[in-house]
Amino acid sequence: MPGRILSSREGSLSTVTVANPGKLNAVDLGMWQQLEATMLALSADDAVRCIVVRGEGDEAFAAGGDLEEFLTARDTVDKAMHYHGCVGRALKAIGDCPHPTIALIRGPCIGGGLEIAGQCDLRLAGESAKFGAPINRIGFSMYPEEMAGLLRLAGPAVVLEILLEGRILSAAEALQKGLLTRVLPDEQLADEVAAAARRICDGAPLVARWHKQWARRLQDSTPLTEAELRASFAFLDSADYKEGLAAFLEKRKPVFRGC
Amino acid sequence: MPGRILSSREGSLSTVTVANPGKLNAVDLGMWQQLEATMLALSADDAVRCIVVRGEGDEAFAAGGDLEEFLTARDTVDKAMHYHGCVGRALKAIGDCPHPTIALIRGPCIGGGLEIAGQCDLRLAGESAKFGAPINRIGFSMYPEEMAGLLRLAGPAVVLEILLEGRILSAAEALQKGLLTRVLPDEQLADEVAAAARRICDGAPLVARWHKQWARRLQDSTPLTEAELRASFAFLDSADYKEGLAAFLEKRKPVFRGC
Amino acid sequence: MPGRILSSREGSLSTVTVANPGKLNAVDLGMWQQLEATMLALSADDAVRCIVVRGEGDEAFAAGGDLEEFLTARDTVDKAMHYHGCVGRALKAIGDCPHPTIALIRGPCIGGGLEIAGQCDLRLAGESAKFGAPINRIGFSMYPEEMAGLLRLAGPAVVLEILLEGRILSAAEALQKGLLTRVLPDEQLADEVAAAARRICDGAPLVARWHKQWARRLQDSTPLTEAELRASFAFLDSADYKEGLAAFLEKRKPVFRGC
Repeated sequence: MPGRILSSREGSLSTVTVANPGKLNAVDLGMWQQLEATMLALSADDAVRCIVVRGEGDEAFAAGGDLEEFLTARDTVDKAMHYHGCVGRALKAIGDCPHPTIALIRGPCIGGGLEIAGQCDLRLAGESAKFGAPINRIGFSMYPEEMAGLLRLAGPAVVLEILLEGRILSAAEALQKGLLTRVLPDEQLADEVAAAARRICDGAPLVARWHKQWARRLQDSTPLTEAELRASFAFLDSADYKEGLAAFLEKRKPVFRGC
Repeated sequence: MPGRILSSREGSLSTVTVANPGKLNAVDLGMWQQLEATMLALSADDAVRCIVVRGEGDEAFAAGGDLEEFLTARDTVDKAMHYHGCVGRALKAIGDCPHPTIALIRGPCIGGGLEIAGQCDLRLAGESAKFGAPINRIGFSMYPEEMAGLLRLAGPAVVLEILLEGRILSAAEALQKGLLTRVLPDEQLADEVAAAARRICDGAPLVARWHKQWARRLQDSTPLTEAELRASFAFLDSADYKEGLAAFLEKRKPVFRGC
Repeated sequence: MPGRILSSREGSLSTVTVANPGKLNAVDLGMWQQLEATMLALSADDAVRCIVVRGEGDEAFAAGGDLEEFLTARDTVDKAMHYHGCVGRALKAIGDCPHPTIALIRGPCIGGGLEIAGQCDLRLAGESAKFGAPINRIGFSMYPEEMAGLLRLAGPAVVLEILLEGRILSAAEALQKGLLTRVLPDEQLADEVAAAARRICDGAPLVARWHKQWARRLQDSTPLTEAELRASFAFLDSADYKEGLAAFLEKRKPVFRGC
């Protein structure tokens, strides 16, 4: 069975599954392309409030790229530019997604898998999860645009530690180094991801998108214009702000409609 | 009793207290304006060597903004620009203060409270302290210029975790995520803040101000000029440097006079 | 016996030792100059795959600068510019070294010692190690270009905590604050540094250098050009990449030759 990206939906919660059975969900070129398409489609769907990204089964998040494929699909500079262009577009589609994203991580989260998790907003991992990119033992370097995403997440000291030693980190180490949001006992991971998704889906969806938009905008050092600052009060005209304030003052749970 | 900002002084140590009794020290518009004025006055006073910022009483640091006030004082874009202009100037007055600042944090440190703590140089919290900005449940987004301060402190992954989930973090979690300097058992918090303030007040006050000045200057990526680098040796002409070197070589405690 | 920088070699692993007996390896002007020369020589030697930087003996990494020397070698702005120019060039020679560097840290790692460790790629410390720069008690400020290196490593909150309080941090605190890569029981430190060096030396040396080069390049916010991105596939033409892929597919240990 070839590798593929699955997408499912339960109410406003979508789940994107990286599936490559028998290969620890290693991501091949076709899967990178499907991942981009899947994320772009979900990004355009305003009914989505949260996306969980996970590996198929309980064994692995994603164990890197498909090395055998490298022999034919990434053996010249032109093919490598095409291959990593596809990887970069998939990662960008996750990072630019307007909806909150949660990586649910069990087992190996290696190389391309780590890059996927690094583009999600939250990274919740089970204690058995493993992190790294031991490509110093295979003889190739990480594509700079992919390294850039990890540098933004965890800084140069952590990224160079991982790449220079090629060591595999435990979930506890990855948490301590800023690569993860939370670590849980494996048997509690699904429940905590569900709880986090519920907290997100119960919040005002426009607020989540604005927060992601401003956090991204502020990574750029250009000062905010007066027009941008005024635009940040778009919530004043939303039905959800009226509902939120009313519910707060009436001490009841708000019901947000995303408008 | 209306909310207000109190300021007291013991030797070279000032204490600024956020006080809004019965409202967990929630900060209203008048208090933001008083906070700016208080910090500007202390900044201009060279006899100050350290400022502790705290909430009145033992119950709370500051539990966010005053939501009831939002109904009238922040209900149009123009009024919101004025309101958050005041918040921004108060936060800037803390961040730009030349003297070292320590946030002493007990109980809720939420929304505007978290933004105040995030502008201090050190953040010492008791184990019972709670952190967050659960505004996704009220339907409004954080003002981008306020988010910028938290991004500088803790980075996008932590800030988005807090804003997207709207979850309240324990002091231990906040420490692990880089939001805090130290966490202490509640009953030891006041003593440790006093000890930190003493360490600061016993040091050379000009050195503290220079360190704050250079740390701020280096956030700007413009290279330092030759003139700036030469100016960084201003200590060579200070009486305190002569005293410090002499005390070190004579193995005695130095007495600094701030000149 | 005057302070000096020692250099030794075992295969592809070099060790640089900061030695100032009886002075806890405090670094004086001559040692900064030797440190620069030593690092430049090793940087130019392609047979080197990893450099361990340490203090002589088991007592200290390096306990800051030599304060007595300041009375004569750093007593005017011109002499101070010369002195800190030498410090800056030594630190830059470590930070710019193309080969991976590991600081092995026991005992005091203070002031200039902390600056040296902060320029290494990995920082492994024994539990007894101590960190800080208590110069607020001596009356001088850290040279801005030296502060810049610590800001890149640990951010403004951690650097200002250290400089404003002048407190000495334990290894556990330094780890929690992002100043260290790993902390080990003192008696296991040498073994773990040897294991980390072995992991690095067993990897492809060109890959290590490329990873360091791209991590440094990406600190600059100028977008990567098409030519730079194509150059990042230089590994495709290396013998080591062919060896790495072959060894992976044949499930054997690769032998890299650095070409």
